[in-house]
Amino acid sequence: MRMGKQTVVFENPPTIFETASTVGKKEGEGPLAKEFDVILEDDYYGESSWEKAESKMQEETAQLALSKAKLKESDVNFILAGDLLNQCVGAHYAMRDMNIPFLGLYGACSTMAESMMIGSMLISGGCADNALCVTSSHYCSAEKQYRYPLEYGGQRAPSAQWTVTGSGAAVLKKDGDGPYIKAVTTGKIIDMGINDVNNMGGAMAGAAADTLTALFRDTGTHPEDYDVIVTGDLATVGSDVLCELMDIDGYNIYPKHKDCGKMIFDIKGQDVHAGGSGCGCCGSVFCGHIFKELKRGNIKRMILMATGALMNPQLLFQGETIPSIAHALIIDTEKVM
Amino acid sequence: MRMGKQTVVFENPPTIFETASTVGKKEGEGPLAKEFDVILEDDYYGESSWEKAESKMQEETAQLALSKAKLKESDVNFILAGDLLNQCVGAHYAMRDMNIPFLGLYGACSTMAESMMIGSMLISGGCADNALCVTSSHYCSAEKQYRYPLEYGGQRAPSAQWTVTGSGAAVLKKDGDGPYIKAVTTGKIIDMGINDVNNMGGAMAGAAADTLTALFRDTGTHPEDYDVIVTGDLATVGSDVLCELMDIDGYNIYPKHKDCGKMIFDIKGQDVHAGGSGCGCCGSVFCGHIFKELKRGNIKRMILMATGALMNPQLLFQGETIPSIAHALIIDTEKVM
Repeated sequence: MRMGKQTVVFENPPTIFETASTVGKKEGEGPLAKEFDVILEDDYYGESSWEKAESKMQEETAQLALSKAKLKESDVNFILAGDLLNQCVGAHYAMRDMNIPFLGLYGACSTMAESMMIGSMLISGGCADNALCVTSSHYCSAEKQYRYPLEYGGQRAPSAQWTVTGSGAAVLKKDGDGPYIKAVTTGKIIDMGINDVNNMGGAMAGAAADTLTALFRDTGTHPEDYDVIVTGDLATVGSDVLCELMDIDGYNIYPKHKDCGKMIFDIKGQDVHAGGSGCGCCGSVFCGHIFKELKRGNIKRMILMATGALMNPQLLFQGETIPSIAHALIIDTEKVM
Repeated sequence: MRMGKQTVVFENPPTIFETASTVGKKEGEGPLAKEFDVILEDDYYGESSWEKAESKMQEETAQLALSKAKLKESDVNFILAGDLLNQCVGAHYAMRDMNIPFLGLYGACSTMAESMMIGSMLISGGCADNALCVTSSHYCSAEKQYRYPLEYGGQRAPSAQWTVTGSGAAVLKKDGDGPYIKAVTTGKIIDMGINDVNNMGGAMAGAAADTLTALFRDTGTHPEDYDVIVTGDLATVGSDVLCELMDIDGYNIYPKHKDCGKMIFDIKGQDVHAGGSGCGCCGSVFCGHIFKELKRGNIKRMILMATGALMNPQLLFQGETIPSIAHALIIDTEKVM
């Protein structure tokens, strides 16, 4: 184990052994449609509320990941999970029937990265042989909670993002053939002074730049060392801000940067304004598409960095700005750096 | 490192190096008053809202713990923090000015134990030299969010608990003279089918019994091996249920059991019905009183187990029951078991 200021580099990097993904109907009509395991036919998924539908989606995605990994519940050391709903009820109701030690996380849309980051530290430190990392978001439950009742039909700003209905689950294991989590960079909370709830990407870009700069500094690597640098859900506005901020810091990431919020939708054709957001955005795109790209050999070495906006509506009503965070992982198909 | 089904026993147990605690006015009039570092004079703490007061309390408690531990922000590897507010804004706004890698947790009232549990695993696994574990709750912000507007003056049920206004912060270090975190037992989510929001203690007792039984089973220890078994905030109703459930499982914990929710208030004299609750209950009682008892030698070997109820009001309105969790730590003033 080698530690930089914010980065832990693993001597025995854990493997991302299997993943599973589920998305909603709209996401299932987007450019990545064929990469997801399950596409929902409607937003209720047979439940009586959107919140219960989200929990069911998260539970079934977690179960699918275990089944693909040929693991029984009793084999799993830890679940690390969270979501956007108040008190993370998406995860809690999803996991209450699973007989597995549970660690609840809140990282907003950074949750997929946070869970894999803590999971990989527990495994590489000898505290676990495996971990199940899960997250979800749901357009309807999120809109209702963060913005307006859906029935109200509120007008959306051009910089606003569309919360992805989706869930991702990843099984990490101590031993395996990769892809490996080689290093993790834990973010600090960064507040750029932005208070526009319709510009989450802009608010999160500062945290993304801070963490990415820390990763390069701590590991002595550069953008050209990676096939791709994937952010969670900065969408169009935030992605532009991140690339510019990195440019000012002396890192040209323009040719390498991709964003899950831009990948999951046909931005113009699907009327999603700046693009996708939500824990389920990075969750489903990583566990659906990117994991397969690593397995297919199309990506060999990459950075996955998910970002989260850490406010709630009440604090914004009280005049507060939006603190944000970003967590990053270096993922590599080769075990040796 | 030795792993049981749910328990990790540390070969090099980390030290709880320093703690700090803050409580509200009412808690400062209770039986533990002289144990706390700071007692607030009023609920607003100079801020314009209860939420901002809670953040300020959490930030200042964290800073006080660092100052007592003689650590600069730049020396700290991780903050692990969370609270009860929607999207954990208590912690996020508290920690945004701290220049320290941040891991956000949600464990409801189990947060103090969850943060020290993950912190000790990161340290003993070689991923950190130290960690700052923090949590808080505030009576006014919690009542407003979970129950009724305070101005409404709602009647309280006899089994209802009183959310503690308080914060606890603990600095864990790799090397030190103890008290040591010798082992941690991670809880599973347990749902006893209780849907009475005025009986949180009862809802959480099942999770507490499940985790405590796992701890005894995994470590081969018994209640008589410990000076005291302290639960977070089961209060009077939940404590009785836990002791009875353990009795049925063959463990007599009656002579050893104490509960932070019963300790922090003069239950009858202060009109708090079943007793205290909230992340800040276990947080302030452990970081204020119990840590000092360990340092004074009055407690040599103990179990600290904090419990959390994982619902939100919306899911209860939708007819759901209350899933719960409990996380436990074995704390010992001697390094060798």
